[in-house]
Formats: sequence, C-alpha cells, structure tokens
Amino acid sequence: MTVTPTDRALRVIARCRDIATYTEVPGETTRRFLTRPMHTVHALLRSCMEIAGMTVHVDAIGNLRGLFPGAAPESPRLLIGSHLDTVPNAGAFDGILGVVLGVAIVEELRGQHLPFAIEVIGFSEEEGVRFSKPFLGSLALVGKLEEETLTRTDESGLNLRQAIEAYGLDPKQLPAAVLPDDTFAYIEFHIEQGPVLESDDASLGIVEALVGQTRMELIFAGHANHAGTTPMHLRHDAMSAAAEWIVAVEDYASSNSDLVATIGKVHASPGAGNVIAGHVTASLDVRHANDNVRNTAVSAILKDAKAAADRRGVQITSQIQLEQPAVPLDPHLTSLLDKAAAQAGFPSRRMTSGAGHDAMILAPIVPSTMLFLRSPGGLSHHPDETVLPQDVEAALATAMEFLTQLRDDRRNLKDGHA
Amino acid sequence: MTVTPTDRALRVIARCRDIATYTEVPGETTRRFLTRPMHTVHALLRSCMEIAGMTVHVDAIGNLRGLFPGAAPESPRLLIGSHLDTVPNAGAFDGILGVVLGVAIVEELRGQHLPFAIEVIGFSEEEGVRFSKPFLGSLALVGKLEEETLTRTDESGLNLRQAIEAYGLDPKQLPAAVLPDDTFAYIEFHIEQGPVLESDDASLGIVEALVGQTRMELIFAGHANHAGTTPMHLRHDAMSAAAEWIVAVEDYASSNSDLVATIGKVHASPGAGNVIAGHVTASLDVRHANDNVRNTAVSAILKDAKAAADRRGVQITSQIQLEQPAVPLDPHLTSLLDKAAAQAGFPSRRMTSGAGHDAMILAPIVPSTMLFLRSPGGLSHHPDETVLPQDVEAALATAMEFLTQLRDDRRNLKDGHA
Repeated sequence: MTVTPTDRALRVIARCRDIATYTEVPGETTRRFLTRPMHTVHALLRSCMEIAGMTVHVDAIGNLRGLFPGAAPESPRLLIGSHLDTVPNAGAFDGILGVVLGVAIVEELRGQHLPFAIEVIGFSEEEGVRFSKPFLGSLALVGKLEEETLTRTDESGLNLRQAIEAYGLDPKQLPAAVLPDDTFAYIEFHIEQGPVLESDDASLGIVEALVGQTRMELIFAGHANHAGTTPMHLRHDAMSAAAEWIVAVEDYASSNSDLVATIGKVHASPGAGNVIAGHVTASLDVRHANDNVRNTAVSAILKDAKAAADRRGVQITSQIQLEQPAVPLDPHLTSLLDKAAAQAGFPSRRMTSGAGHDAMILAPIVPSTMLFLRSPGGLSHHPDETVLPQDVEAALATAMEFLTQLRDDRRNLKDGHA
Repeated sequence: MTVTPTDRALRVIARCRDIATYTEVPGETTRRFLTRPMHTVHALLRSCMEIAGMTVHVDAIGNLRGLFPGAAPESPRLLIGSHLDTVPNAGAFDGILGVVLGVAIVEELRGQHLPFAIEVIGFSEEEGVRFSKPFLGSLALVGKLEEETLTRTDESGLNLRQAIEAYGLDPKQLPAAVLPDDTFAYIEFHIEQGPVLESDDASLGIVEALVGQTRMELIFAGHANHAGTTPMHLRHDAMSAAAEWIVAVEDYASSNSDLVATIGKVHASPGAGNVIAGHVTASLDVRHANDNVRNTAVSAILKDAKAAADRRGVQITSQIQLEQPAVPLDPHLTSLLDKAAAQAGFPSRRMTSGAGHDAMILAPIVPSTMLFLRSPGGLSHHPDETVLPQDVEAALATAMEFLTQLRDDRRNLKDGHA
C-alpha cells in the first residue's frame, strides 16, 4: 500500500532533522543526557508544545513533560513518549521521533479536548551512554531510580546528582517526577532499528513484547601448539571447537521461530597464525519474547558447546553476564492499536522488539503498547539512519485512529459493555 | 624398547641445561643472535671441542665451527649442526641439543680418525627473533645471505652489519664463511617440537622432508547489525560464515594424511557481544611435505570459504602471505640413517618436519638428513621443554652407527659396489 506523504509527516521529519543539529560534537549528532544541547532541545520542543496548547515543565531527572488537558478536570491521562538523548554519532530519529510524533498528535487535535488528558514526555536518558546505565528518565518516572545510581560518575568524574544540579535541576524534587496514578496507558512510537518491516514491505509494526535476553561469556580451553608439528588427530584446538559451536548456535536459532542468537565477540589466543589456539573467549547473546523458549535455547546451546569441546579434548566454562526476562506489552491496548492501524488502512504486522525501550520500564507499572516505524536498510545508531515520509504519515494516521479507539473503548468500559 | 640412559646421555643433557643459563634475561633462557651471552656459549663449546681434538673458529656470521680432521688430509667433510640462538623465554634443548650432540659424537670417537672429517657447526641464528628473519647462520654458510639483509635493523636500531662488528667479527669476511665444497653430507639432530613420537611411544624420528607451507589471510565481509533486532534469516553474519569455514578446514585436513591446516588468529569486528560481526579476519596455515597435496588443499579450502560465505551473503577476499615449497631430504642418506637406527636397536619411525630447520637451507646445496628426538608433551618454545635421557642415548647410539654406515657406504662407493 502506498500512502502519499502529507505535510504533517514532512514537518515531523524536518523537526527531527532540526533537533539532530543540537549536538555536543559539531558535524555529528551526539547528545548525551543533560548536556548543553539538551537545553536547546527542551526550549524548542517546549515552544511547539505550548503552541499546541500544552502546559510544559522539566522534571528533576530532566524529562520534558507537556500536558494537554482532557475535557474534564479529573480526566485520566494517556502518556505518549520516547527519549531525547542519543548514542555518539547517532542518526536523527532514534528516540526523538517518538517525542516529535507525540507533539504532532496533539497538534492534530487542534485544541479539541478528549475525555482523557495527553501527556507527551521526552525522556532525558535512555541510551545509557553518559553514566553507563540506561533508562534513567523512565526509571525516575516510575520511582525506580535507586539512591545508589545518583552516585554513579560520568567520564569527567561528575556524579549523577551533580549533573542534575549542573543542569539547573534539583535532585530533591525527584519524588515529584513520579508518574501520577491517573495514568491509564502509555504508547511509544520508535523506529524499528531492524530489517523486519522493510523485508515485509510494511510501514508499521505492532509490538507485542520486548524480548528477554541472556548474555554469557564462554571460554574454550584447549592446548596451544605448533601449527606445523602437531598432527590433526593430536590437537586440542580451541578455535575449531568454538567454530563448531558457533555454527550450531546459528542452526539452532535459525530453526526456532523468532529466536535470535549471536556470537559477536571472539578472541583466540595466543592469536598467532602459526600457533593452534589454546584459548577462545566468545560472547553469547540470546533473545526471545518467551522466557521459556529462551531458557531452553540457552541450555541446548551450552550442550552444543560441551559436545563440540568434548570431541576435541577441550574444556569449557561459561558465565552469565546478563539475564533479563521478557516484558510483554498490554494485550488489550495492543489489540486497540492493531484495530487502529487496520482502520487507518495499514495491514497489521505484529512483532517483538529485540532492543530495549522505555516501554520496558513503563510496562510493569502502566498498560503499555508500542508502534514501530520501518527502518530503511535496518539502519540504526548510525548517521545514515532514516525514516520514510509515508511511514511517518502511516504512524500519524494510526495514532489519531488509536485515540478514537481509546475514547470508544473507555466509553464502553464506563458503560459496562467491555 | 627401554634403553638405560648412560653417562654420556646425561652429560649431553647437563651441558644443554648449563648453556641455558647463558641468557639475556636473568631467570629465563633468552639468547638472541650475537648478544652478550653468545660469547660465553662460544667459549664453553670451544673448549669442549678443543678437548675432543677439534680446531675451532667463529666465522663472520657468528657460526661456531669445530673441525675434527679425517684420516687423510684430503678427507671429505661430514657436517653436523644445529643452532645456538633461542626464542624469548625458551627451553633448554631447541637447537643447542643438536650442537652438543655433535660435540658428543666427536668425543665418542676418542681421537680415532675416520675416512672423512667431521665439522660440528653451531649456527648463530635460526629463530629469526633479532632481525625478523630466520636462518641467518645457515644462509651465510651456503652463500645466500643477501647484501640487503645486512641493512635490516633490530629493535635498538642497529643493523645486521653493525651487530656483526659489535660482536667483534668482520662482515667483509662473510664470503670466507661459505661451506667448502668438500662437504658430502649434513646431518642435524633436533627435538621434534611436536607430539608424534610421544604418541607413537618412539624415541627417534627419521625426517624425510620438511613440509611446504602456505600462509594466508582471509577476510569475511558481511554486515554488522543489531543482535536483538535482526532476525536470523536477514543476517549477513561474518562470524558464522568464518566458523563454518573453520570447521570445514579441520574436516578437510583431518581426512588427508599428514596434512595440517590451522586457523590460529581470528578477529571479529566490531567485536561487541550485542552486535553481529560485520567483518572477520582469519589466518590460514597449511602444510604438507608434498606441494601438490598442499596446493590442492588450499584450493579446496578456499572453495569451502566461498561456499560458507555465499550461503550468508557474505563477501570473501584472501591474500597469500607466504608460499614456501617443501624441502625433501636426501633419500640415500636418510635410508642410511634408517639402517643405523635399526642397527642401534631403535624401530624406525619416518616422518616429516612441520617446522623449519637449518637443514631446509642446507638440503638444496648438500645431501642432508635429520634425526628427531621425542619431545615430551610435544612441548617446545617453552621453559618446560625437555628431552628424555634414554632418547638422547638412542640418538647417540644411532649417530655412532650412522658414522659406520657412512664409512661403509663411502667405501662401497669408492669400490664401485653401490
């Protein structure tokens, strides 16, 4: 289906590209948590929000928050958000697109109030670059930013508390940043950061869950030996063992739907061309939306490693570095989003998110859903990252329809029909 | 077969261990070409040689050369040698054992002259550590040390010519170092540096050839992508492609007798656990005593690499870094050595050498043969490198029998019986 990009979509893209120029490093987009250019981003978005009729403030962790009130003073709150920070040398859409879309949605309402308020939130921190810990903005929003985190230091030696103060904010006000409990739903728009939608020729993806993840390190310990004088049958080659295992991991993941498993880091030592590898250290990253599937996979993969090692008289040890359960999104909200996409004329493509997002932090607290926009070339965390105008239009149209679905749904709820 | 080690074997081992204490680095054995401790080694071996009745000099490249004259003034010359230099943090036997055995053989003659002279040579340089070029001693001996090599510099900036002068030698005398053409045979004793003899429960190995070698670098170029958001079927994983190839290389070499193939160096980039490897650089080392077998293997292995890469939409490039033909040793001398070992009571175990030795440089010029002594644990280039007393005794007994075989053989030749 081809959608003609409208002015509103082009405006969203232009605004993202404009914001990408607010950077710590001239010539590229690098905008970490609470750095100087974030002031300009706050100022720019604040004026857009205010023009659209929103009341704006920056909370104590640096989240930019604009409230468009509901029809009645006691209206519950829909939260729309994503993050304002970037990785070093980033693209122009990761995170910021979701915030700009949130503002555009309110702009589309043209002052018309709904039976619920809309709060658009630009999270101050999601990428984890400055303090080597991600989700600082959303963690503060759900009251889970731990005291200890405030003592983490950035590379200049400044701790988080000091960074907040240096930005002109008051860490004592952190409790006031916590999301009011009148919030009934959270929706996040984000680029996919992967090739799935593009390969399916789809504009939008409806996210059912954020995958769980296991990260491990495996060590294959054989014997380093002379590559010329050691016959094949007398070798204990750690690299051959690791290689057989890497192929087995690829096979296993490929034959299990939606499972991904990656060995991205391999170090062979002593690492000389004429010496058989005595030791190989390898990373393992396994992800799936179903924790049982993931755990079964990890067990099978470790068994494969042991078999490949045993065949060569190689020893194996492994260590878990990260074990993170999957986060399911709200099935009811997700089905409303599905319906909205269909109404707006976009075939629904359900999927899981292989990457982490603020929705992961929000979902356990408030019913949450996510809409992905196609990433051309699957590119993300890269200056060439982009988004297609027709996909932004599709997302906007779906979002407006989602507001309608949400309004009808709440009316049914109130009337006892649902 | 068990042989009781005799005093002469224990003396050889003790002498090697003594010489191992002459080192550039206290506490370990590191003795590079023409460094200070080499003076002491020269002095010690010179006195042993002179006591055994040899005339000794150090040639212009620093080879220590002791001549035990034959029965007649015009007697032809048998050369027995190996090298005096070591790798950093070496063992006590690699190279030096062959020189000390040469001296012990002459000692065993107890002044009795044979119909041929024996020159024992301690090559000054074989490992290639100081000037990043091996075989300097034997290359000078066969007149193949190129003028350009004299301008190579060591890590202190001294060139080879200056190093020779600093040691007290005269580079102008290099032509005088060339082996006289009365030399009719060369024999080298060396530890195996591999596990073959030990796994066969054999003391000695009779070397038929030094293997040829191909060294290459392969680059697998796929696409680096997010490990969470890129489904298995949309990946171009350079590490998986390389891994499939590494297993194929192991399979191919294992199913071809005496072929060895090694991937000892693997570098995956960007090298993060959560990023699919976009590039993998891998070494390849293939060796066999038959150049046709080796060339066929390299072709097959490159085809395997292409197949593994193609299956994943990964590109592959390769570059040859070293292409060295096999060096066959002299079949007649080798059969005499075989006969000698049998006469001495040691089952003959023919093999090829997977490592380079001075014999490789000598063989194209003078009929050459080599005898390997078992390396316990296959260990070499390591402080724990050792040799068994009974194996040294076996080598000595074989060597003395070899002299007899050689004498009879030459008598037959002269009488026209061979």
